[in-house]
Amino acid sequence: MIKLVILGTGNVASHLFDAFFKTKGVVVVQVYNHKAASLKPFAEKTQTTSALNELVEADIYLISVKDDAVEELASKIPYKNKLIAHTSGSVPLLSVGQKNAVFYPLQTFSKEVALDFSKIPLCIEASDSESFSYTEALAKQVSNKVFSIDTKQRKSLHLAAVFACNFANYMYHVGETICHEKNIPFEILHPLMAETTRKAIANSPKEVQTGPAKRNDKKTMGFHLTQLKTPFLRKLYRLISEGILKNQ
Amino acid sequence: MIKLVILGTGNVASHLFDAFFKTKGVVVVQVYNHKAASLKPFAEKTQTTSALNELVEADIYLISVKDDAVEELASKIPYKNKLIAHTSGSVPLLSVGQKNAVFYPLQTFSKEVALDFSKIPLCIEASDSESFSYTEALAKQVSNKVFSIDTKQRKSLHLAAVFACNFANYMYHVGETICHEKNIPFEILHPLMAETTRKAIANSPKEVQTGPAKRNDKKTMGFHLTQLKTPFLRKLYRLISEGILKNQ
Repeated sequence: MIKLVILGTGNVASHLFDAFFKTKGVVVVQVYNHKAASLKPFAEKTQTTSALNELVEADIYLISVKDDAVEELASKIPYKNKLIAHTSGSVPLLSVGQKNAVFYPLQTFSKEVALDFSKIPLCIEASDSESFSYTEALAKQVSNKVFSIDTKQRKSLHLAAVFACNFANYMYHVGETICHEKNIPFEILHPLMAETTRKAIANSPKEVQTGPAKRNDKKTMGFHLTQLKTPFLRKLYRLISEGILKNQ
Repeated sequence: MIKLVILGTGNVASHLFDAFFKTKGVVVVQVYNHKAASLKPFAEKTQTTSALNELVEADIYLISVKDDAVEELASKIPYKNKLIAHTSGSVPLLSVGQKNAVFYPLQTFSKEVALDFSKIPLCIEASDSESFSYTEALAKQVSNKVFSIDTKQRKSLHLAAVFACNFANYMYHVGETICHEKNIPFEILHPLMAETTRKAIANSPKEVQTGPAKRNDKKTMGFHLTQLKTPFLRKLYRLISEGILKNQ
């Protein structure tokens, strides 16, 4: 049985708490937050505290707070021989001089939406092999998708996620704008968006690319450019089409 | 009971045949293709022909062939007072001088993947109100998502689909490339892609945009630019970030 203290009560911390609460191999012995009010939702299920000197002894201290607060909070944990892990994608291994690890769930969490944690990829890294094994054991309690990802890889993963998620969402945004200009309900595109994403997941997105740029259909692309209203969107259309055509 | 002849045996025609075959209000009385071999999969279920002069009488002739063959095939149908509809997104209403309509299912069809037709948006348009009613009745037999979309709107819809689908898929492609360069399994991003698309469908993509460009996080964007290897990708990153930031 792994004894766990969770530090933080935000989206990620809450989803992790719920996931660990259901497992048999982990017990969340305490939840910490500096604001006592934030602890309320947890108080029925476990011990809580807003004072760092009241932290109880545990096997792992899992920090899930804002990126720039991780290091300082880690330095204040009053147990020096215990494993400290954090959940941040962009913070490297800690420099607190003790066993530590990264426990990064790669997903976008919304407060209101329940997620099946077993399918969420957990990217883990640790300061030493013993800590890695411990972190891996913790991760496997909640997810079937545990990956060993070092700090360099995690940085690339963050960049890849900007393209595959933020930038893909921006393409949806432009699609929505074009629809609304002509009083077309955007929902007409929903099934196509879902199917495109399903295909890109089931295959390689490179291999399933379709459309005028892919087949170098200059007539259709030329016509699309005349339909786009701003120089910005025309520039964007040309650049992405170039990327698709040259398979960059 | 609507009597229907389907002309064409490609992906769209096959999926439509399967969908109509299950309905009570429509009977596919014949399938036509100029190549007799393509008719085999249909021959067990209905009458088939590869000779236009053998076309039987029906209420609607539904043409689902390549864009540039639609008009010519329509002109050869030997019944001049019957409704002719085609399934092409980029072909306008026909100029055959008789009742005609567009019956455009907005989805990407793969031969091997069965689709729930009831959720596929059907964009319809017709030369006159009686033909529209008839086409609408046909559409409602197979889909709960029937939209009246005129030729101009259909053109915009096609452009919007290029952004929301082809270009979104290209963003997945770039994400995959970045992962593979660092030996990161692309599947780590799959759940995030699926959740991003789910969110964009459940909400407005504009409203759920996140990431460094959205919060004008110059430090992270600067770091990402140093990670991107080609001038092309840096240009692309800058341009899309500009679009997100300025909400264009």
